[in-house]
Amino acid sequence: MSEAKTAIAEATADAVNVRGLDLTGDLMGHVTLTELFFLLLMGRKPDEREREMTDACLVAIAEHGLVPSVQAARMTLSAAPESLQGAVAAGLLGCGSVILGATEYAGAMLRDGLASGADPVAIVREHREARRALPGFGHPLHRDGDPRTVRLLALSDELGVSGEHVALLRAIEAAVPEVYGRVLPLNVSGAIAAPMLDLGLPAYTLKAIPLLARTAGLLGHLREEHERPIGFKLASLAEAGIEYDG
Amino acid sequence: MSEAKTAIAEATADAVNVRGLDLTGDLMGHVTLTELFFLLLMGRKPDEREREMTDACLVAIAEHGLVPSVQAARMTLSAAPESLQGAVAAGLLGCGSVILGATEYAGAMLRDGLASGADPVAIVREHREARRALPGFGHPLHRDGDPRTVRLLALSDELGVSGEHVALLRAIEAAVPEVYGRVLPLNVSGAIAAPMLDLGLPAYTLKAIPLLARTAGLLGHLREEHERPIGFKLASLAEAGIEYDG
Amino acid sequence: MSEAKTAIAEATADAVNVRGLDLTGDLMGHVTLTELFFLLLMGRKPDEREREMTDACLVAIAEHGLVPSVQAARMTLSAAPESLQGAVAAGLLGCGSVILGATEYAGAMLRDGLASGADPVAIVREHREARRALPGFGHPLHRDGDPRTVRLLALSDELGVSGEHVALLRAIEAAVPEVYGRVLPLNVSGAIAAPMLDLGLPAYTLKAIPLLARTAGLLGHLREEHERPIGFKLASLAEAGIEYDG
Amino acid sequence: MSEAKTAIAEATADAVNVRGLDLTGDLMGHVTLTELFFLLLMGRKPDEREREMTDACLVAIAEHGLVPSVQAARMTLSAAPESLQGAVAAGLLGCGSVILGATEYAGAMLRDGLASGADPVAIVREHREARRALPGFGHPLHRDGDPRTVRLLALSDELGVSGEHVALLRAIEAAVPEVYGRVLPLNVSGAIAAPMLDLGLPAYTLKAIPLLARTAGLLGHLREEHERPIGFKLASLAEAGIEYDG
Repeated sequence: MSEAKTAIAEATADAVNVRGLDLTGDLMGHVTLTELFFLLLMGRKPDEREREMTDACLVAIAEHGLVPSVQAARMTLSAAPESLQGAVAAGLLGCGSVILGATEYAGAMLRDGLASGADPVAIVREHREARRALPGFGHPLHRDGDPRTVRLLALSDELGVSGEHVALLRAIEAAVPEVYGRVLPLNVSGAIAAPMLDLGLPAYTLKAIPLLARTAGLLGHLREEHERPIGFKLASLAEAGIEYDG
Repeated sequence: MSEAKTAIAEATADAVNVRGLDLTGDLMGHVTLTELFFLLLMGRKPDEREREMTDACLVAIAEHGLVPSVQAARMTLSAAPESLQGAVAAGLLGCGSVILGATEYAGAMLRDGLASGADPVAIVREHREARRALPGFGHPLHRDGDPRTVRLLALSDELGVSGEHVALLRAIEAAVPEVYGRVLPLNVSGAIAAPMLDLGLPAYTLKAIPLLARTAGLLGHLREEHERPIGFKLASLAEAGIEYDG
Repeated sequence: MSEAKTAIAEATADAVNVRGLDLTGDLMGHVTLTELFFLLLMGRKPDEREREMTDACLVAIAEHGLVPSVQAARMTLSAAPESLQGAVAAGLLGCGSVILGATEYAGAMLRDGLASGADPVAIVREHREARRALPGFGHPLHRDGDPRTVRLLALSDELGVSGEHVALLRAIEAAVPEVYGRVLPLNVSGAIAAPMLDLGLPAYTLKAIPLLARTAGLLGHLREEHERPIGFKLASLAEAGIEYDG
Repeated sequence: MSEAKTAIAEATADAVNVRGLDLTGDLMGHVTLTELFFLLLMGRKPDEREREMTDACLVAIAEHGLVPSVQAARMTLSAAPESLQGAVAAGLLGCGSVILGATEYAGAMLRDGLASGADPVAIVREHREARRALPGFGHPLHRDGDPRTVRLLALSDELGVSGEHVALLRAIEAAVPEVYGRVLPLNVSGAIAAPMLDLGLPAYTLKAIPLLARTAGLLGHLREEHERPIGFKLASLAEAGIEYDG
């Protein structure tokens, strides 16, 4: 079934080999974490425009304030300070289909749309008729447009990254008012998915972008939680607003 | 007890503010993920030598082949492919006191050693007498020296990062043979802890470095697992070597 | 959107109320964990036959040896012994769609089959034609029949639990050879789903059975891991069988 | 280092063996989940008084309303409904040293106190002088006494479970006012630790009791979350009470 092989890395007594390169001689001091991440995911180093686009996507999605996953992580650290890794894990477990998964679903929609040559209006209509959310569009807070979106697509154009996936995303955005009768703003998940697909990242792996980025965000919150705790406060504020009717 | 405040980030309808900066205008397209991570953790952007040192530490610890946490993550993805976040979380949960926690413990030893002005030989002797492992020293595979260590400390010197924590680490390394009667090689956890402490990261938060770095590594393995699965193979190889004596 | 209420439990200064009952006076010393679990899930205490069936399902699925999720948990404890909860969490994260999720999917198939009045042969054919696994059937190890299955359905009959869901499951089992041209043995997930649906547990919540049961199993393994460790051994056995081709 | 053996369970093509017993013939339909859990942990079946005591401890600690770990689990399910196991895992990760770990620490205090023959007053004084919390005593909500405590110790006496660990716990409780100048009420963690130690469970493994029990509690909440969601409401209630001062 499987080839029983890995191309990611191996450690020997005197070296660590990563994707065919020597960690110590070829990578340390020569590449950034983002470049290493790209190498690990894609099997090759990014060029400068790929690096810039990947960094912009990671930076765009790393932080969004006290979102549920951050609250879960901070409460977990309050209760289990012996395990920083447990608090990060609890936060990442909330990076699911509803919150950050739209990256993957928007990516699949763009990939499948290109594969089938479907008309953008038809794609939007299909979602509306099935009463499914249109992945990559809409945001509960940024109702009049997500500021990160404009910036990401501008960078993607500027860097020459934008290709057929960005084009289809824009065509879908343009088709939304025709089908929904109103604007449904493009969100950051859609605006990450399209340029990263144009760089060659497959849809399934798109969620790697928010997962790595949010880990950085969570670690920032968790240092703060250690020094200026709000975890139990968050829980008591929330509990006070819920009635027991058992 | 707590101030009920956070300085990390907030999202409003038309902006995301991160550590007092505007995400869209000040950060996206201007900073790398590593620079954002430093900003989130430290409350200020790194200068170029701080950025280089942080990237070198992250790159050094991101990958080490099929270590237990990678195996746990790959088996978890095989069993639960619907949750990429769950597989990453399972992998991070293995970044504990035995495997990557030495970063934190080595950091605490250096911090406390400087605070108390203890003699390096006394520090080593104290660990040996209490039969506690000397954090930051020794490695089951890299028995004759960890190649990442030399590179990290050379970079730390070159970049002018090395300060009193790196000096104490070297003094402890030099004191080891006197106490143990043999060389106990410095490992990557120790060689990350000292320069990062010299950059101002507190000991408690040092584990943020391996946690972010390993997330990148895990995501590389998990893309591969999706396309070239070995998770169940790993489990059956291991199971075959264990006898039931119930 | 939500009512902002919970009927599960509340704690006051001098009592804990659970599902309308007093924890100390009504439950402690009066109910088993299984009865409390049934009360929490269903909002009412089980009668004796419901209790017996639920216990039998839990006991059936708690242990299956060194499966991948157990290996992940044991490796995690080896690496992070400070966090027993982290090792349990790592194990549970592998209770996903491929390994134990069939309980939920088999349940949905039975529920939907009854709702639509579909013919059992048609249900089987639909799965085969869509090249989807038939949930609740087949097992990589128990190829000639899963011993737990026979026992569970016999108990379900004996206790008078078997209703329309068990009947449909048996009809599907009987239809398999007609469609597949061979026997595909019923597995434990199917044999848990049908009686628990007949007791009123909705399909979405069926996975609660393997999740609670496996927690008990994992905790047994983790005590053993603490006293007779094999976590790192498992990882080295597995690693030795995988080649690096980076 | 390790024997590379497990006594917990093994699966063969036609049987599952658990702790030397046949799962299908000896356990299913014959034992409750609590009895199986005891067998897995201790290597032998409980007698009736052991079973009752274990059930009482599990029931006592399973639910306490919307505690932080429940909130973390419910928020996680809201964000990632595709992974019930991820929501349970996020909840369990908050069963740490601060919240439920007192079981383990109280157990270690009792075990070490008996081993060294220390005077109860000396044990309490040692904690006070080191400014360490006295594990098993005090509760932020149940300030005038934890109702579960009285019930557990009464059951322990009634069942004839109470031995030297329960006796030492009571002696420590009696010594508290002398050292602290006020009553510090015994809490549920202490009242679980002592009888379970008297039954032979080692201190390290005591946390297995709250971990299994809370899994049952979490699954109750998560069924409710699926049908009557409050996860996002909890997060918005909490967020509204925290100010950004970045």
